[in-house]
Amino acid sequence: MPDAFTPKPEHRFTFGLWTTSNPGRDPFGEPTRPALDPIENIRKMAEIGAWGFNFHDNDLVPFGAGAAERDKIVKNAKKAMTDTGIVCSMATTNLFSHAVFKDGAFTSNDARVRAYAIQKTMHAIDLGVELGAKIYVFWGGREGAEVDLAKDPVESMKRMREALNFLTRYVKDQDYDLTFALEAKPNEPRGDIYLATTGNMLAFIETLDDKAMVGVNPEYAHETMAGLNFQHHVAQAMEAGKLFHIDLNGQKMSRFDQDLRFGSEDLKGALLLVRLLENHSYVGPRHFDAHAYRTEDAEGVWDFARGCMRTYLILKERARKIDDDPEIRALLKEIRNDDEKFEALIEKPGKESAEKLKKAKLNPEELAKRPLRYERLDQLLHEVLMGVRG
Amino acid sequence: MPDAFTPKPEHRFTFGLWTTSNPGRDPFGEPTRPALDPIENIRKMAEIGAWGFNFHDNDLVPFGAGAAERDKIVKNAKKAMTDTGIVCSMATTNLFSHAVFKDGAFTSNDARVRAYAIQKTMHAIDLGVELGAKIYVFWGGREGAEVDLAKDPVESMKRMREALNFLTRYVKDQDYDLTFALEAKPNEPRGDIYLATTGNMLAFIETLDDKAMVGVNPEYAHETMAGLNFQHHVAQAMEAGKLFHIDLNGQKMSRFDQDLRFGSEDLKGALLLVRLLENHSYVGPRHFDAHAYRTEDAEGVWDFARGCMRTYLILKERARKIDDDPEIRALLKEIRNDDEKFEALIEKPGKESAEKLKKAKLNPEELAKRPLRYERLDQLLHEVLMGVRG
Amino acid sequence: MPDAFTPKPEHRFTFGLWTTSNPGRDPFGEPTRPALDPIENIRKMAEIGAWGFNFHDNDLVPFGAGAAERDKIVKNAKKAMTDTGIVCSMATTNLFSHAVFKDGAFTSNDARVRAYAIQKTMHAIDLGVELGAKIYVFWGGREGAEVDLAKDPVESMKRMREALNFLTRYVKDQDYDLTFALEAKPNEPRGDIYLATTGNMLAFIETLDDKAMVGVNPEYAHETMAGLNFQHHVAQAMEAGKLFHIDLNGQKMSRFDQDLRFGSEDLKGALLLVRLLENHSYVGPRHFDAHAYRTEDAEGVWDFARGCMRTYLILKERARKIDDDPEIRALLKEIRNDDEKFEALIEKPGKESAEKLKKAKLNPEELAKRPLRYERLDQLLHEVLMGVRG
Amino acid sequence: MPDAFTPKPEHRFTFGLWTTSNPGRDPFGEPTRPALDPIENIRKMAEIGAWGFNFHDNDLVPFGAGAAERDKIVKNAKKAMTDTGIVCSMATTNLFSHAVFKDGAFTSNDARVRAYAIQKTMHAIDLGVELGAKIYVFWGGREGAEVDLAKDPVESMKRMREALNFLTRYVKDQDYDLTFALEAKPNEPRGDIYLATTGNMLAFIETLDDKAMVGVNPEYAHETMAGLNFQHHVAQAMEAGKLFHIDLNGQKMSRFDQDLRFGSEDLKGALLLVRLLENHSYVGPRHFDAHAYRTEDAEGVWDFARGCMRTYLILKERARKIDDDPEIRALLKEIRNDDEKFEALIEKPGKESAEKLKKAKLNPEELAKRPLRYERLDQLLHEVLMGVRG
Repeated sequence: MPDAFTPKPEHRFTFGLWTTSNPGRDPFGEPTRPALDPIENIRKMAEIGAWGFNFHDNDLVPFGAGAAERDKIVKNAKKAMTDTGIVCSMATTNLFSHAVFKDGAFTSNDARVRAYAIQKTMHAIDLGVELGAKIYVFWGGREGAEVDLAKDPVESMKRMREALNFLTRYVKDQDYDLTFALEAKPNEPRGDIYLATTGNMLAFIETLDDKAMVGVNPEYAHETMAGLNFQHHVAQAMEAGKLFHIDLNGQKMSRFDQDLRFGSEDLKGALLLVRLLENHSYVGPRHFDAHAYRTEDAEGVWDFARGCMRTYLILKERARKIDDDPEIRALLKEIRNDDEKFEALIEKPGKESAEKLKKAKLNPEELAKRPLRYERLDQLLHEVLMGVRG
Repeated sequence: MPDAFTPKPEHRFTFGLWTTSNPGRDPFGEPTRPALDPIENIRKMAEIGAWGFNFHDNDLVPFGAGAAERDKIVKNAKKAMTDTGIVCSMATTNLFSHAVFKDGAFTSNDARVRAYAIQKTMHAIDLGVELGAKIYVFWGGREGAEVDLAKDPVESMKRMREALNFLTRYVKDQDYDLTFALEAKPNEPRGDIYLATTGNMLAFIETLDDKAMVGVNPEYAHETMAGLNFQHHVAQAMEAGKLFHIDLNGQKMSRFDQDLRFGSEDLKGALLLVRLLENHSYVGPRHFDAHAYRTEDAEGVWDFARGCMRTYLILKERARKIDDDPEIRALLKEIRNDDEKFEALIEKPGKESAEKLKKAKLNPEELAKRPLRYERLDQLLHEVLMGVRG
Repeated sequence: MPDAFTPKPEHRFTFGLWTTSNPGRDPFGEPTRPALDPIENIRKMAEIGAWGFNFHDNDLVPFGAGAAERDKIVKNAKKAMTDTGIVCSMATTNLFSHAVFKDGAFTSNDARVRAYAIQKTMHAIDLGVELGAKIYVFWGGREGAEVDLAKDPVESMKRMREALNFLTRYVKDQDYDLTFALEAKPNEPRGDIYLATTGNMLAFIETLDDKAMVGVNPEYAHETMAGLNFQHHVAQAMEAGKLFHIDLNGQKMSRFDQDLRFGSEDLKGALLLVRLLENHSYVGPRHFDAHAYRTEDAEGVWDFARGCMRTYLILKERARKIDDDPEIRALLKEIRNDDEKFEALIEKPGKESAEKLKKAKLNPEELAKRPLRYERLDQLLHEVLMGVRG
Repeated sequence: MPDAFTPKPEHRFTFGLWTTSNPGRDPFGEPTRPALDPIENIRKMAEIGAWGFNFHDNDLVPFGAGAAERDKIVKNAKKAMTDTGIVCSMATTNLFSHAVFKDGAFTSNDARVRAYAIQKTMHAIDLGVELGAKIYVFWGGREGAEVDLAKDPVESMKRMREALNFLTRYVKDQDYDLTFALEAKPNEPRGDIYLATTGNMLAFIETLDDKAMVGVNPEYAHETMAGLNFQHHVAQAMEAGKLFHIDLNGQKMSRFDQDLRFGSEDLKGALLLVRLLENHSYVGPRHFDAHAYRTEDAEGVWDFARGCMRTYLILKERARKIDDDPEIRALLKEIRNDDEKFEALIEKPGKESAEKLKKAKLNPEELAKRPLRYERLDQLLHEVLMGVRG
C-alpha cells in the first residue's frame, strides 16, 4: 500500500544494473540466484519507483559482443526507457573483471593495457551517451598494488592523469554533454588502491587539464571501510562544488566490502547523511550501489531495492522533524556564539585585523566554561529517529 | 661505537620537544617518568646526532607565561642552539590541550574561541620564526566532532579556510620566510576529525587564498590508523609538490594512536617509505613524531630516539641494495612494457589520437597473458631486507 | 516528566563511580570539568533512578589513604546507600593507573609487582564486600605488551591463572558471597592485551581451580574495538551460564576506546543486544561503563547518564514490539524448518544415527532453493525501531 | 641452488590443494590462471620440498562425483603419494561453496541442511582417513549472519555443538585415528561468523562431549583481520594443549581476507610467531593457507609457495640468533625479577599465604622505578632480523 514513504521518480532514486542483477557469488561461494536480464531489470526498476538506472558497459553489452548485438540491446533498452519513463542517469566502464586488468587499467605497467583501458572507456562513453547518461563514473578497482616495489606510486599518479586528460578531451571533442565523477576506494580487490579517499580524488582533480568537468562520486561503504566519517567527505565535496554523484549503501567499519542495503548499518550516520544532502540541496541522483544478501532469491532482491528507497524517505522525514523540533532548535542556537566583532575581523585578513586580533582580550579560562549540551542534543536526535518525540 | 648507521646532522633527523619529554601518561595511567626540561632536551638531541628540533609553543613556553619568562626561555634555547649547532626546523601551535579548545579551535562554534585560536597561533608563529623555524605545522586535533548534528561539516570547511587565509596573510605581512604544512588525522582525540587524510588536506589547500605557501605534513601513524597505505599518500603529495614535512613513526592499523618508534611496525612499509623519500629526493626534515613506551625510564627515551634514526639509516642502505640488486632490476624491467607508440598517443589527447586509439588492435586475451612475477619480486625484497642476499 | 521510559530501581541500572566523575581528560587534553565527590556521585545516581553503583577501590578510597580515611569514606558511602536505597552492585581493583603497573599487574615480569597486585586486590575485595558487592570484576588493563619479546605469552597465561586461583581461594577462605567476572579488551592502553576477547576469557576460566565462581563481564566497546559482533560474544557467555555482568556503552568499530553513551552508535546492534538480554532472562545489573563527552559540563554528565537508561528502555519496548509484530513472526516461522526426523537423528549421536544420516536422501540443489526473506525481515526491524509500524 | 633455507620434509611444511590451485578469481574479477589438476598439484608440492598436503573434499573429488570417479581419484592421489613420499596431513569439508549452505551448514535454520552438512562431513572424513589424514579441520565459513534477528545466536551455539558431538562420536565409532581442529574467523564471507576467534573456539570445545579429541587451528589472517595479536591466541592454545594445527599466511589488519604469502606482512610478528612455535616445541604441520597474487601465472604460484617456506626457515634462523645474542640475553635477564619468596607465596593459595601476602611490605613507588629497557630490546630484535648484528 502506498504511504508517505512510497518512492516516486521525483525523488531521483537510481540503481545500477549490477546491483539488482547480482547473483550472490562471493569469494567463497557460487551464485545463489540467476542473474537478471538487463532489460527486464530496467523495467522492474521503473515499476518499483526508481527514477533512473545506470550501468557498466558490460552490465548491458557482454564483453566482446559485436556491433549488431550491441545495437539490438541498445534498442531494447531504449524501448524499455520509453515504455516506462525511466532514465539512464549514469554510465561507467568495467575496468576490473577481465584478467587483462589484473595489475591495473590506467596505471598498468604495460602501455598497451593502458591504451586498451582508454579504448574500452571511449566505447563505453559512447554507449552511455547514446542512452542519455549525463554523468560518467570512474572507479579504478584495479588501480593499486599488493607489491609496492612493482609500481612507482608517483608514476601511477601521472598515468592516472594522462588517462583522465585524454578522456575529458575526448568528451569535449565529441560535444558530449557529460561530466565525470571519480570514485575512491581504499582497498579490495587490490591490497591498496591509489587515491584511497574522496579527499585524494578532490586533490587529484585539481591537477587535471579540465578540472571543471570532473567531480566525485563518494560511496558510503568506501570511506566507511577505512573507518572514516562519510558525511565529512561528502561535505568537503559539496563545499567545493564537486558532489556530482553519490553511492548510498550500508557497511560495517574496517571490513571487507559489504554493499548492504542503505540504512542497514549506522542508522544515525544514514540519517545525518540524508539531512546533509537534503539541507544543502544536492540535486543529483540518489544512487544505491548495493546488493541483496546472498540468502535472497529473485523476489528478495526487490525487497532489498524497495528497502533502500523506503529507508531514505523515512530518514528524510525524520531529518525534517529534527530541524523543526523546538528543543533541538533551542540547543543548536545556544551552542553557537556568532560574535560579530570577531567574525568581522577573521573574515578580513590583513595587517589591521591581525593587530586588533593580537591585542584582543580573550580569556581562555572564561571561554572554556561555556556549556555545550551535546549529550542532550544527540539523545534528542535519537528520540526523534526512533519516533518517541512529538 | 660509531658505524655506518650513526646519525649525523647531514641526515636531517629531527624530533619534537614533546616526543622525548613525553612522561608516559596515557588515558588509563599516570606519568611513569619526569618530563624533561626543554633546554636540556634540545642539547641532548644535538648530542645524539639530530639535525634539528621542533616544538609546540607550549612545549617551550608554558601556557600563560609572561613576556619575561618567554624571553628568558628563548634566550636559553638560542644559546643551546649556538652551543650545539642544532637548528629549529619546525614550529607549531598547541590548539588541543586547554579546555577552551574542547569543541575545536578554528572550527569552534564560538567565534571568540576561533579568534583566540588565531591569536595564539600568531604569537606562536612569532616565537617559531624567532627561533629560526622555516616550516609551520597545523594539526587540528580538536577540529572535529562526536555529535555531527552540533557542527555543520560544510560550515566547518569555511571556518577552517578563514583561519588559514588569515594566517597566511599574517605571515606575508610580517615578511616571514615560512611555509605552512597541514597535518591530517582521522580521529582521536575527537570521534572524527575534519579533513581526515592527507588527500583531504591537499584538496583543501587548493581552496586557499595563497595555496603556494601551504603544503602537507603527512604522519605515518595517521593514515595507518585508517588502514590506508601511507606511501601512496606521500607519493601524491610529492607529485603535487606539496610534501613540505613528514612525521615518521610506527603504528598498528586501525588502532588508537600509538606513536611507536620508527620501523617498529610494518618493516616492509617503512623500507618502501624510506626508499620513496630518498629516490624522489625529498629534502625536508626527517621528523620523528613518536615517543618511548611507558615502560621506559629517562635513559630508555634516548634508546628510543637513537633507534628511530638508526633504523632509518639501515633501511636507507637496504633501499639502495634493492635498487642495485641485478635480479630485482631484471624483474622490474621485465614488468614494464613502455610501448612507445601507445605512450605517444596517450600523451597527446585530441581527436587524432582518440581516433587512432579507438581503432587500435588490442587483444585483451593476449595482453592478459603477460606474466608478472610479483611474488618473486616481493620475496627478493624481503631477503634483501633481512640481509640474506649478496 | 516521567513517562514509559523513566528508569526505576527494578530495571537494575548501574553506573561506575568513574563514569559520572570522569573529568574529561584525554591523551591530548586536560580536564574540562571537576571530578565529582564519590559520595555526592552515589546520591545523584540514586536520584536519577539507578539501582546500583560500582567502583574501583581508588574511585572511593584514594590511592595510599590510611585506615581512618578509608573507614570514614566507607561510613559515608553506607549512609548514602541507606538514605537513598541504592546498592553497591559490583567492585573492582584499579590495577592500571599507578606506574607500578606499567608492565602489568598479575603478569608483570617482577614477582614483587605481581604480589603487590594480589595484595591490593585482596584489600579491594574486602572493601567491595563491606559495601555489599556481590560481583567482583577483573579488567587487566596493563596485562599485555608492546614488545612481545619481553614477556612470554605462554608464561603470562600461567601467571594470570596463579593470581586468579589465589584470589578465588581467598574469597572462599573469607566466606565471602562473591563471584568473579573477567573483562576482556583487545588493546589500549597496552599495544595488545592478553585474553583479548570474551571468548578467550571463557576458555581461560575453564583452566582455573574454581571455575564455577568465575564468569565474564563483556563490554560492548571492547569487542567492537576489534570489529567483532558483541551479541555473539554475549550469547556464547549466556549459553555457557557465564554472563555474570555486562558493560554497556557505545563505540565505533576499530577505533580508540570511546566509551560513548549507550545506544549512540549502532542503534540496531544496541536493540538486538537489549532483546538478547531480555529474551534470555539476564538477571544481572545493566551496567553503563561510559562517560560524557569532554564538551559537557557537570549538568551534561547527568544528561549522559539519563540518556543511557532512557535509550535502554526505549529499545526494550521496541524489542517487545518486534517479537509481537505479526509479519515479523510469520517471517521468522517461515525461515525455520525444524524437520523432526533429522533433528531426532542429530540429537542422538551413535552408529545407528550415523548410518541413517549417511544414507538419507538429501538433495542440495532442492534444499538450496528455499527462499530466506532476510532483507524484508531486517527492513521490518528497522521500521519498528524507527516507529513507523503499527 | 640449495642453501641453509631449502625446505625439506623434516620441516613439516604443508599446503592445501586449494592454495596452489587458486585460479585468481576474486569478488570483482574472473580467474587469471587455470586451476591446477589436484594430482599434479600433489606431485609438484613434493617436488618443492613440502612434507604434506591437505584438502577439502571437493578440492580432490568434485561436488556430486560418483563412487567410481572418487575411487579413481583416490587411487591416483595415493600413487602420487607413494611415488613422492608426500603425506596427507589434514583434511576438511567444503561447507561453504554450494548455495545449499547460503545461511549456514551446522547452524542453518533448516534441519535438513544441518543433516546434509553432517552427512557430507562424514563422507569427507572417510575420504580424509583413507588418504591418511590424522587431523580434521572445521572452518564454518557460513556459520554466521548478516541479519541477527534471523538466527538466535544462543541457539546457534547449541546447533554447532550437536554437529560436533555427532561427528566426534562418528570418528570413534569408526575407530579412526583422527583429531579435530576448529578454525575461527571473525567475518567474511558472512557479515559476522560465530565463534569469531580462537579464544571463542577454545571455550566452545570445553562444552563438547569429547573435548580431548578437539583442538584448534588458528589462522594468522583471521585474528589479524580483527586487529588481534595472533601470537597471543596461539600461546593460549598451546598452553591449553590445544594447538593441533596452524594456518600460516600474511594479512593486513582490519581488512578483507587476503591470504598473502607467509611473512609478507608484519615481519616482526612472523618472526615472533616462528619463535613461539619452535621454542615451545610445536610438532604439528606448518601449514600455509594462502595463495599467489592474482597477477601471477602458473610459475609464479610456485614462487609463492617456495617463498612461504623459505621465509619460515630464515625467520627460524633469526629466532635462534635472537636467543643466542648476549646483549638480548642480558636484557631479558635484567627484565625479570623472580623473587622466590613471593613466587612461593603466590603458588600456594590459602589462608596462610593470603595473610602473609596481605601484610607484606611492598612499596609501589619503589617498585615502579625499575627500568625496563624495552625500546632497546625491540631495536636489537629488529637489528638481528635485518642481519646487521654479529
